[in-house]
Amino acid sequence: MACHHDRVAHSSASAGALLHHVRTGRARSRAELVALTGAARNTVSARVDQLIAAGLLEEGGRGWSTGGRPPTLLRFNSAAGCVLAVDLGVTSVDVAVTDLSAQVLATIGHPIDIADGPGPVLAEVDRLAQEVLAEAGLTPADVCAVGVGVPGPVEFSTGRPSHPPIMPGWHDFPIPSAFGRYDGPVFVDNDVNVMALGEMGVAGSVQDVLVVKVGTGIGCGIIVDGDVYRGAQGSAGDIGHIHVPCADGREVVCRCGQVNCLEAIAGGGALLRDARAAGLPVATTREVVERAAQGDGVALELVRHAGRTIGTVLAALVNFFNPHRIVMTGGVARAGVPLLAGIRESVYARSMPLAARALEITVSDAPDLSGRVGAALMAIEGYLDDDSVSEALTRATLAR
Amino acid sequence: MACHHDRVAHSSASAGALLHHVRTGRARSRAELVALTGAARNTVSARVDQLIAAGLLEEGGRGWSTGGRPPTLLRFNSAAGCVLAVDLGVTSVDVAVTDLSAQVLATIGHPIDIADGPGPVLAEVDRLAQEVLAEAGLTPADVCAVGVGVPGPVEFSTGRPSHPPIMPGWHDFPIPSAFGRYDGPVFVDNDVNVMALGEMGVAGSVQDVLVVKVGTGIGCGIIVDGDVYRGAQGSAGDIGHIHVPCADGREVVCRCGQVNCLEAIAGGGALLRDARAAGLPVATTREVVERAAQGDGVALELVRHAGRTIGTVLAALVNFFNPHRIVMTGGVARAGVPLLAGIRESVYARSMPLAARALEITVSDAPDLSGRVGAALMAIEGYLDDDSVSEALTRATLAR
Repeated sequence: MACHHDRVAHSSASAGALLHHVRTGRARSRAELVALTGAARNTVSARVDQLIAAGLLEEGGRGWSTGGRPPTLLRFNSAAGCVLAVDLGVTSVDVAVTDLSAQVLATIGHPIDIADGPGPVLAEVDRLAQEVLAEAGLTPADVCAVGVGVPGPVEFSTGRPSHPPIMPGWHDFPIPSAFGRYDGPVFVDNDVNVMALGEMGVAGSVQDVLVVKVGTGIGCGIIVDGDVYRGAQGSAGDIGHIHVPCADGREVVCRCGQVNCLEAIAGGGALLRDARAAGLPVATTREVVERAAQGDGVALELVRHAGRTIGTVLAALVNFFNPHRIVMTGGVARAGVPLLAGIRESVYARSMPLAARALEITVSDAPDLSGRVGAALMAIEGYLDDDSVSEALTRATLAR
Repeated sequence: MACHHDRVAHSSASAGALLHHVRTGRARSRAELVALTGAARNTVSARVDQLIAAGLLEEGGRGWSTGGRPPTLLRFNSAAGCVLAVDLGVTSVDVAVTDLSAQVLATIGHPIDIADGPGPVLAEVDRLAQEVLAEAGLTPADVCAVGVGVPGPVEFSTGRPSHPPIMPGWHDFPIPSAFGRYDGPVFVDNDVNVMALGEMGVAGSVQDVLVVKVGTGIGCGIIVDGDVYRGAQGSAGDIGHIHVPCADGREVVCRCGQVNCLEAIAGGGALLRDARAAGLPVATTREVVERAAQGDGVALELVRHAGRTIGTVLAALVNFFNPHRIVMTGGVARAGVPLLAGIRESVYARSMPLAARALEITVSDAPDLSGRVGAALMAIEGYLDDDSVSEALTRATLAR
């Protein structure tokens, strides 16, 4: 009844499937691939030869023999290509080039204003990408795929933002078209799904995890058995507009037009608004978070209160989803302890004991990196999936 | 990135995988199995022969030839065995025997009191099972597997209830031990997960669905890409104790000890309590539901109000989970329209438009049947999964 996170269900002797088995350590030789897939030895050998010719697999050393000639070991060649990883924020963008195991080869960041629209912003991304490739001694021809995370909802199949509230001018813009100088596929998703992938990549886990970003808005990436869960319209994880009762009976209007949405009460903007109302001389949410980190009592209580409010929603989601782990990320999560304390207070008060018992709630270890690592992983998994690999091998064969 | 619901990922030329391909219509001949799996023709033929010998596959007719001898068609023989399906409720039990496509061959129901404990209740189930087998002209030796749904949390891997609140005396009881007269495996799960499987079986859908049971308690079965999602400790879907604010500021103590749990405000027990407080001469929740169905204004408003409260929780879950469909079931769902009206009111008022746009919210078409069909499907899928089939074939070979 378990849901496999493996994408190679139906034709496990395909080139992509064989590659997957070697990449994930399930098989280390032709013989092990034959045993694992039940496919004919000739079929496996021919496909492995294709993958070696394409540079994706390489032969190295000899394994232990169980009688007869010792097998030649196979390993994934993560240097066979590189991907571009773009982590697009509201006020800055990070562009990295990584190898096929998401190891960063070079990276560069730059301030932008997302409200300048797709034309100027993506021209800047293009410039940065060329710079970062040059720094790594690579050319556009080396880029196998591109992964882009953006701060708004995206139709995953087309890479077009869908009415993104904080990306004016970006609705329906085909982001992949801005990467025409690269041959490979371009994958675009919202930043929270991308970060969730990145957190999984950093932690190496394949379980049921929620990655909750508390920045200006609040969103959640859902990992089911190691994969991003997207839901019917791809909008799963959109928890920022869940209704929460305001403790003091206030009605707070959200930018979406509703009242008392989670992010209108506990997001970064709300934190700044409440800090100013409490008399703190702050201009940005970051300053509130920094004050809390320095031990300012008012800022601490405001962050903890935001945590409590976020915790009321997470308590319900813990009962419903029963995750192994919740990872907090985003600008407000940098506050750390006071935010976690507020969240834990609500979650442990209101979740069912069985679901809360072994639940870990943590702050991301690598909040700055997870967007880039996630974008790289999205590109790599997309590039190395079954169909793409078969297609690439076919192209390579035809080109000979 | 999609999560496959297919359980045959890593060894797709195994006997179980070949059987799965034929059962689901992906392949109808040895040649199609070879094409689909990439396995050697000899391997496929040998395993198909084993499956035919075991009675699970049969040969029928000739397909169209694409040149050469027309292929012999294969089909799944759903009459190769039967399963027992047990739908255990608080006050009654239904036992059915079905073929391997979950078609009911005979069924029988009987009143019980779950509080009598596992000894007397499972003795009664055993008696009913023998009666229903006799009615279908079958013997215990024909039973390949048993599926049991129970009204409480279960550790799926062992089939033991885990602190079930409305099953006194059942904690940690090994339910499978009561079915020792059958050779096959016994699968036990909570009634809501089982019903969710049953709803999927009836509707034939493999998408992201929530099945919400509103009986005495309130619970939710979660289907992700066609499979039951259980979460870290197997407690996913436990939505009855999500905290909801009571509209009039009341604090209602739940049987779990917390205040204002969803089921303490909108479950069947709450409905009865509120109906009596409103002066209705009713002794059971069923009577309240019947009065609503007959147009009693007070009962109608109570049911609709329960729907609104349930809808506030579902609105949050729609944002988070973005399901294709929500199916309502259980005793209170028999009220139909007024319950749905209340739920829809809250969901459409508070869910994000993108997630709510194409969402279907319906009442189960077959609330009486889904528990038995789900229990049968759980048993069938468990019995025909990869390892079980291989094991059964090995046993059959050794017995020769």
